[in-house]
Order: sequence, then structure tokens, then C-alpha cells
Amino acid sequence: MNINDNYLKLKDSYLFSLITKKVKEYSSAYPDKDIIRLGIGDVTLPLVPAVINAMRNAVLEMGNSGTFRGYGEEQGYSFLRKTICGYYDKKAVTLNDDEVFISDGAKSDLGNILDIFSVDNTVLIPDPVYPVYADTNIMAGRKITYMNGNADNGFLPLPVKDFKADIIYLCSPNNPTGAVYNREELKLWVDYAMENNAVILFDSAYEIFVRDDKLPTSIYQIQGAKECAIEFCSLSKTAGFTGTRCAYTIIPNDLIRSGSALNKLWLRRQTTKFNGVPYIIQRGAEAVFSDHGLVQIKSDIDYYMENAGIIAGTLTELGIWFTGGQNSPYIWLKCPDNMSCWDFFDYLLEKTGIVGTPGAGFGANGEGFFRLTAFGSRENMVEAMQRIKKLGLGR
Amino acid sequence: MNINDNYLKLKDSYLFSLITKKVKEYSSAYPDKDIIRLGIGDVTLPLVPAVINAMRNAVLEMGNSGTFRGYGEEQGYSFLRKTICGYYDKKAVTLNDDEVFISDGAKSDLGNILDIFSVDNTVLIPDPVYPVYADTNIMAGRKITYMNGNADNGFLPLPVKDFKADIIYLCSPNNPTGAVYNREELKLWVDYAMENNAVILFDSAYEIFVRDDKLPTSIYQIQGAKECAIEFCSLSKTAGFTGTRCAYTIIPNDLIRSGSALNKLWLRRQTTKFNGVPYIIQRGAEAVFSDHGLVQIKSDIDYYMENAGIIAGTLTELGIWFTGGQNSPYIWLKCPDNMSCWDFFDYLLEKTGIVGTPGAGFGANGEGFFRLTAFGSRENMVEAMQRIKKLGLGR
Repeated sequence: MNINDNYLKLKDSYLFSLITKKVKEYSSAYPDKDIIRLGIGDVTLPLVPAVINAMRNAVLEMGNSGTFRGYGEEQGYSFLRKTICGYYDKKAVTLNDDEVFISDGAKSDLGNILDIFSVDNTVLIPDPVYPVYADTNIMAGRKITYMNGNADNGFLPLPVKDFKADIIYLCSPNNPTGAVYNREELKLWVDYAMENNAVILFDSAYEIFVRDDKLPTSIYQIQGAKECAIEFCSLSKTAGFTGTRCAYTIIPNDLIRSGSALNKLWLRRQTTKFNGVPYIIQRGAEAVFSDHGLVQIKSDIDYYMENAGIIAGTLTELGIWFTGGQNSPYIWLKCPDNMSCWDFFDYLLEKTGIVGTPGAGFGANGEGFFRLTAFGSRENMVEAMQRIKKLGLGR
Repeated sequence: MNINDNYLKLKDSYLFSLITKKVKEYSSAYPDKDIIRLGIGDVTLPLVPAVINAMRNAVLEMGNSGTFRGYGEEQGYSFLRKTICGYYDKKAVTLNDDEVFISDGAKSDLGNILDIFSVDNTVLIPDPVYPVYADTNIMAGRKITYMNGNADNGFLPLPVKDFKADIIYLCSPNNPTGAVYNREELKLWVDYAMENNAVILFDSAYEIFVRDDKLPTSIYQIQGAKECAIEFCSLSKTAGFTGTRCAYTIIPNDLIRSGSALNKLWLRRQTTKFNGVPYIIQRGAEAVFSDHGLVQIKSDIDYYMENAGIIAGTLTELGIWFTGGQNSPYIWLKCPDNMSCWDFFDYLLEKTGIVGTPGAGFGANGEGFFRLTAFGSRENMVEAMQRIKKLGLGR
């Protein structure tokens, strides 16, 4: 009996435990100080009424012998898959409902999708980025190459000629930087993937935050993407489903590698290792995309984006360099006075009681940068920015 | 770019599609005949009131800003993990709550657990059995050895000396045979696993159906099992959660292989590739184990077991050999007159309109056998047995 010793190659993530420890020490030292958490990547507004009503009805259905539901299709109920096709229609993307797979989370699917690929594929991952992309590949023993995001390329790395990758991760709008690829940049990636017979894993979890209608919200808005890309999206940030758990993954039928349709391989994976999302939750997810639901979630997204605007306005006023905040709930700022990200963390906590996330937690290129998030109350956001302005940072 | 070509080694499962096709042909030929489905492995009774009430309250909490919940711990809320420890206390098994992992299904965990083991481990799987054990290992490219279940060993294979396996699957009460290992037999398996440094993956999804209190309902009731076994259980059959999705997996802290605690490897797997079960569903699951909940689900289990008794009584009367039905919702019978399982399927459908499951769908040793399930209405069960009695089968 041997364990999968690739697990031993994983670095422990001390990021959030170290943050917790430092905040605890600060609280003990200054019990009267108000801490404002702008590091959190979790939503704070409750589920919208359309979703609550749909789930309440679905719960009652499950208690009645005439309407009770047992096993559903592993890939999700047809009613929800068709609803998501309708959502894509509005993006001018036409999908068949057998190209949509419902799951409990984009994190699950982004990890599990690797099952269908050979371990000898090489992987290209941006740095900084959501750490799960790298960890799941390390667990499987794949070779990873990182591409550098930095202030020069606006944290939007582009393909490099003569470098061949098989699996490419793109996250746009990006976590943690909030940067968004435009159509021309995504086209370069699609062309690169087609030339190299690669597959793009496109994480569009923050698509709902895009305000600029010239920016793409799905990779399938780019010509050719259906032959080289899988798209992962989640209701976690779209509709506050972080604790409710529902996501969808799109694998076009035209996406063929080594003679196999990836859609059919994933269907086989899901029917063998998954049993679908709860009926109650799928009814809640369906309601997100109803007319009422869309109006209600738009109001929540507007609230978060007004928060983002308050942060962005303050940073602009102070002359601090940042990306994000325009089409994303994340603001990625350059630490003032060339501080390291942990020095800035300590400085900000000590002087203002504000907790953010040091950029190094998202990769080596995150050193010197810092993430703030717009998922908090208006009151806290305004108060936090007043405290920051008093610091006399920037120019 | 290469796909995981182990997927190409999987055989397509024609079992259920062939059943569907044959039933459809029968319906067309005899549109007036009433079909009774005793092949289905899904529950039919609705969720009990305790669960419905708990989920209704949880839905309302999610719509209120004071009680809304975002991300929970990936391994499940502490309230549910502690509740499951309480359920095990009643089995005289003491667990720490960090040994309990909540998930969306035993099928998911049984597949995903393989992530933490080396691909070069050898796997021992009973035949006949739930097909997912084999398929998930074929997908990963592991070498599988099958152990024969048959009428001679009551479909309860025991360890063979001088054969070394690393990963051993046991399912008791068994799907599809309904056979249950006793304590002495399970002790042989625990001793074998300890001698061979192996790990037992123990599927206890049907534990609630055990009526004979001398039979074990958890492998941890066997001395030494905490050092060699992982237990998988689900609320699918316990509480009718097939469409509601909640399960739990136990990995004792004492289970160490290659110097690593398997509990910690699985925690790392789940925190990286999973985001937990919906809060609403976990509140429903908690209610299953409340005093009211346990009384209510016991009543449903009694109903199914009375159905099983009706089937078992008929087969006994007809002198047809079978296992199961005493401590399991499954009845596994020898096809009368030495018919093949598909011949018996056709015969039964043609003569009575009853649909069962041919044993060959669960492995080579299932040939000549047939599965009936107790998850149907009383009315259908009584009617089906009357039709079978009229056939003049058996002695």
C-alpha cells in the first residue's frame, strides 16, 4: 500500500491561517478597535427572494409523495440545463443542453476535470492566480509552467510563441487581480490553443461583474473557442451561492482531443463519480435566471460594484496603482512605498484595523501587491476608506 | 494533449439501457398491461416531516441577512459532524468529529478517495457488486483482482491467504445480493488488512436495514478496524436522500499508511477539490438523527422491509433460492429452471409485466441470478407476488 506521494509535494497554505493568527493577536492587543475585513472572498448579502421562494416550494415538493424526487440525472435536471442555455443565448452563444453540466461548484469541476486528461500533459498557469489550479495539478503529478502576470502586462499574460502547453488556465475577470481579457487578447489564446492542440480551462466565475459591454463574459464569444475551451462558471458570486452550492461547466460537443469527445469523457466521469446536485438547489439555481431573479441579483451585484467603486475612487485619489474594481469585485493594488505585501498587511492592520490579503498568497508575482474585496457592507467600506485616507499614503 | 486513455478501457454499461429498451418494446406490444418495476434501486417514499421542517427553516435563514451563511467548512458543519458522532455512539463506536467528513454522496467519495492512493496499488473487488468500485479503478489505471461471490459462500467472499491486495472493497449489507457479513467474517478481513498493510473501503450505505442486532452495522465495531478501514455511508437509502444528496465518510485518525495519516490526505483533497454540502441540506441531514427524525425514518424503513418480507415469503413458498431481504432491501434470487438472467428477465416481463435486474449487470458471478428491490408501493408488491405465484415456478 502506497499513498499518492504527489500529495507530499504540496506546500501547506499558511496564508489564511497566518492572517487569522495576526488578526487574533491584534484583537488581543487592542480589544477596543473595530476590525474591518476586506480580505474575505465570500459574499455577505442573503439569497434573493426569487431563489428563496423556489427553494421553499421545492422543499415542500420533496415532502409530498406525489412530487417527491429521487435520483436525478448526474449532469443536472434538464430544466436547469435549458435555463443556462437561455442565459448564454443572451450572450450570443448558442449551446445544446447536453453541453451543460450542473455541479456543486466550479472548484469541484476545476479539480475533477483533470481526471479526463493524461498525467503527461504540460500545464500553463498564470501567476498570480486562484491557488487551486496549481494544487490540483501537483496532486496529479503534472508538470506546471507559470506565466508571469505583472504591472507591465496589466496582470493579463498573453501566449508566448515556441512554448507548447497542453492545458491552459485562464481566469477572467481574474481572481485575485480583477483584470479582464478583451476579445482580441482572448482570440490570441484561442488561436494559440488551436495551433498547439491544447485545451483552455476558462474560469468565468466573475462574469456577472463585467460592466463594460465590449468585454467578453464567455470564451465562446470568441471565434473557434468551442473547439478548444471548457468554461467553468458558478453561482457562488453571481447569486450569493457560496453556501448553497451550484455551478455549471460547459463542454462543447465540438471539442475533440485524441479522437475522443471531451464532453462524453466528462459525462462518463460524472455518471461514475457523482450523483448530481440536490433537486432543491437546482430549483433555486433555475430561479436565479428568471426575470425576477435576474433583476434581484443585479441589484446585489450593483451594491458590491458600488463598494468596489468606493475603493477604486480612494486609491485613484491617493495615486496608488491598482487593477480591477471596474468589472470585478476585486481590487489588486501595489503596496505603497514599495512595502512587501506582508509589511503592508501589518501596517494596514496596525494603523487602521483593516484586514486585506497579501498578494504573495496567490503566487510569486503577487509579492508587493495586495487584494481588497468589495463583498462587505457599505458602512464598513466607507469607514475603511476614511481610515486609509487619513494614513497619508501615496503621493 | 492526450486524454486519460484508461477511460477507453471502460466497458459501456448496457444494462439499464437494454432494460429500458426491452420494457419499451413490451409496452408497445401490450399497451394494456400494467408494468411493475422491482428493478429500481431508488427510494419512493417522500422525505420525512422532521427533515422537511429543518430544510424549510434553513431556506428562510438563507434569505435573511442576519442568518445567511456563505462558505462553510469543506468537510461539513461541525453541528452535523457531531450529530453523526452521536449516531455512532449508539453503535458503541467512539469517533472524533474531525474523523467525519460530510459530502454529497457515497458514490462521490468512493470514487474520489482513490485520489489519495498510489496508482500502483492492487485492488480487490467482490463480484458481483456495485459497478462503480471497478469503473473508478479502471479510470485510474489500477490493477483489479475480483473475488468470487457465489451460492456456496452466500455471496460473502472471505480473504484468501498468500494473495496480497492493497485496497479492498467490502459492501455489507451488499448491493446487489443483500448478504451481510457477521462479526467473525469481518474480523477475518480486518486481520487480513492489518497483515497486508492494506486499506478496507467499507460501504455501509445499507446499514439502517440491518434488523439482526448480532450483525455489525459499522466496521468499527470490529477490533482493529480503525487502523485499516475507511467507512462510507449515505443518507440516500437511510432517509430517502437520493435526490437530496448527503453522505458521510469516516477516516479514523489512527489510519496511517506510508507514514501519512489518511485523514489529513483526504482533508487536503477535500479542501482543494470540494466546497462542502449546501447548508440547507446539512440542516436536513442533522434532522434525520433527531429523536423525531429517527422515529420517522424507522417507520419508512419498516415499510420497505415489510415489502422485502413479502418478496422473501413468496420465494420461500416457491422454493426459490435467494439471499437478502432479511437485513437488506435487496433480494438476490437464483433464476428458476437454470434460466440465464436475461432469459429470466424476458420470461418475467413477458408473463407478468414485472421488471427486475439481471444479475450479470453486477459482474460475471451474477449470471443465473436476479435482483428484486423492496423500494416500491405495498400495493405493487402484493400484486407482483400474486402474479409470480401464478407462474407455477420452482418445485
